[in-house]
Amino acid sequence: MKAPIIRGAEHPFPCSMGVRREPMMRVGYPAILAAELFSDFPAEVELIALPDDLDHEIEIDVWIPDPYPTKAMRIWPRLRGVRLVLSLMAGTEWIPGTVGPRVTICNARGAHNISTAEWTVSAILATLKYFPFYLDVQRGGVWKRRFEASAQYARITGDARPLYPPVMLEELTGKRVLLVGYGAIGKEIERMLAPFDVKLVRVARSSRNEPTVHAISELDSLLPQAEIVILILPSTAESHHLIGGRQLALMRQGALLVNAARGPIVDTDALVAALNSGRIRAALDVTDPEPLPEGHPLWSYPNLLLTPHVAGSSPQFAPRSVKTAADELRRYLAGEPMHNVVQAAV
Amino acid sequence: MKAPIIRGAEHPFPCSMGVRREPMMRVGYPAILAAELFSDFPAEVELIALPDDLDHEIEIDVWIPDPYPTKAMRIWPRLRGVRLVLSLMAGTEWIPGTVGPRVTICNARGAHNISTAEWTVSAILATLKYFPFYLDVQRGGVWKRRFEASAQYARITGDARPLYPPVMLEELTGKRVLLVGYGAIGKEIERMLAPFDVKLVRVARSSRNEPTVHAISELDSLLPQAEIVILILPSTAESHHLIGGRQLALMRQGALLVNAARGPIVDTDALVAALNSGRIRAALDVTDPEPLPEGHPLWSYPNLLLTPHVAGSSPQFAPRSVKTAADELRRYLAGEPMHNVVQAAV
Repeated sequence: MKAPIIRGAEHPFPCSMGVRREPMMRVGYPAILAAELFSDFPAEVELIALPDDLDHEIEIDVWIPDPYPTKAMRIWPRLRGVRLVLSLMAGTEWIPGTVGPRVTICNARGAHNISTAEWTVSAILATLKYFPFYLDVQRGGVWKRRFEASAQYARITGDARPLYPPVMLEELTGKRVLLVGYGAIGKEIERMLAPFDVKLVRVARSSRNEPTVHAISELDSLLPQAEIVILILPSTAESHHLIGGRQLALMRQGALLVNAARGPIVDTDALVAALNSGRIRAALDVTDPEPLPEGHPLWSYPNLLLTPHVAGSSPQFAPRSVKTAADELRRYLAGEPMHNVVQAAV
Repeated sequence: MKAPIIRGAEHPFPCSMGVRREPMMRVGYPAILAAELFSDFPAEVELIALPDDLDHEIEIDVWIPDPYPTKAMRIWPRLRGVRLVLSLMAGTEWIPGTVGPRVTICNARGAHNISTAEWTVSAILATLKYFPFYLDVQRGGVWKRRFEASAQYARITGDARPLYPPVMLEELTGKRVLLVGYGAIGKEIERMLAPFDVKLVRVARSSRNEPTVHAISELDSLLPQAEIVILILPSTAESHHLIGGRQLALMRQGALLVNAARGPIVDTDALVAALNSGRIRAALDVTDPEPLPEGHPLWSYPNLLLTPHVAGSSPQFAPRSVKTAADELRRYLAGEPMHNVVQAAV
């Protein structure tokens, strides 16, 4: 396979210089990404490495933005001629407002699926196994503190039966799980939960069959049964504050809310109140606002496992998402329908 | 179904009293266990609740010891006539030495399988997702500290490539796993790892086919390939210090050693040295010595996730293990072969 031409933006062909534009399609990508990631790109494109501090205008046809929106948005005003944006991320909320309606936008659907689904299952298991508590025990170095876990179990779940031997952690097996969102990542989560024989109920924007997916309008009636509620749906005007005070009040004592999607899907003030009262527990990789500012109350709850939007990260991420972009570009060049269009150019 | 007779030890029929022994088989169990757990016991037995502070001799045929060996051993000198011990635990190391060779001993194989297998997968995922580090970030309340995870990844794994976006956690999917021990819990672990498409190599005392299980004699040659090594084999003279300095030195930089079995399978001094050097990481639910004394060096390593022998615990444990004992007792009464004999009476 012929390797694509890779050229640095330090040798640009800006449209304003009057140099005849080469017929080869020009694809700009963040220079910080290793060039070898692009060795599988179609040979008929010219790859232009765009430095973070690009200081002149540059003409490209296809833009692969930096995964960090703030960095990508800084470079956008220098770009000319962009017809297609190939995002390396699944979430592309910032892109339409930046590039406008005349540009086609594709996301890297799939690039975060495995890592995000793994984070979701990991966060559920870490919560049920009381790992935050046991990490304290480990750091304190007192073995017998394990017996404190029983009181924690009784307090969280409201199960006040005298259990012997003392309960020192919980099980995922057999739990009732409400999966809110049934796209690619939701399906991966379902696949990873399968060995735990969970009783899974699926919810998505609209109801479907085979497998049964309930409509989001049924959410309130489904919440009271669930022991674990997983949010893995897109952030839209419809899903804004989908989980508010009423929904949190419908959840069982000790139920676990997991947000691996986007912060604004949950009403933060209502969540803070629910965590503060000890009614539910939560695991969040995303927050609203994000980044969560220092001193925000969400940082402080022991019944919350909070990671700073890292679920999609993985050493395998860059190779996987660049490959997704390459496959999409190949379809674009061949005039075939692309798979991951999130905005078609008007 | 006729419920069994349940009687407290406060109305004993001690053999020394000359009272004619009833023909009904007498089963002693720890009074601290809720009586309703035994409602499914065979109707033809008489259940005797044995208090922790039993202060007189008592004649029973079958003994269900307290799950805590120290408590069980204190009561043993009061018991007379015991022919069968039905342990509620999978590990029964303390029992033969206490009750001698003239008593048949059955364990509760299966009662810990799910919880222990869940702990194993949870500990692996928590380690790969850097949850101990992120818990620090959470408690410190500084979002941008997530970028420190990249250096941690490079240091642990020795992967010094400049990776962008920065690596903030790892994946389980596709990892090479060496499963040392292939009994019931080992098989559960394999089942729970299946969705992660791990490359699993099995090792047990002797080699087998379908599926392929390697003999323990091949361990040293298999260790260098593994990214995760799971110990889930019985503690025996043969498995004592199975993992010592030589084996730890054979493991890859950054490989994860998981011990969900028994502490003495690993040479603690050698493990401390390996953790101290940063060569490997570990997740332990068991230690040697156990309980781990205050001030022991094992408490202090950030590349170790340590829980104080809680993996088998679960709110579902008591019902499950009592049911296992009931099933075994039913076979004993029917003169059928029992399933979980760990010592046959001589």
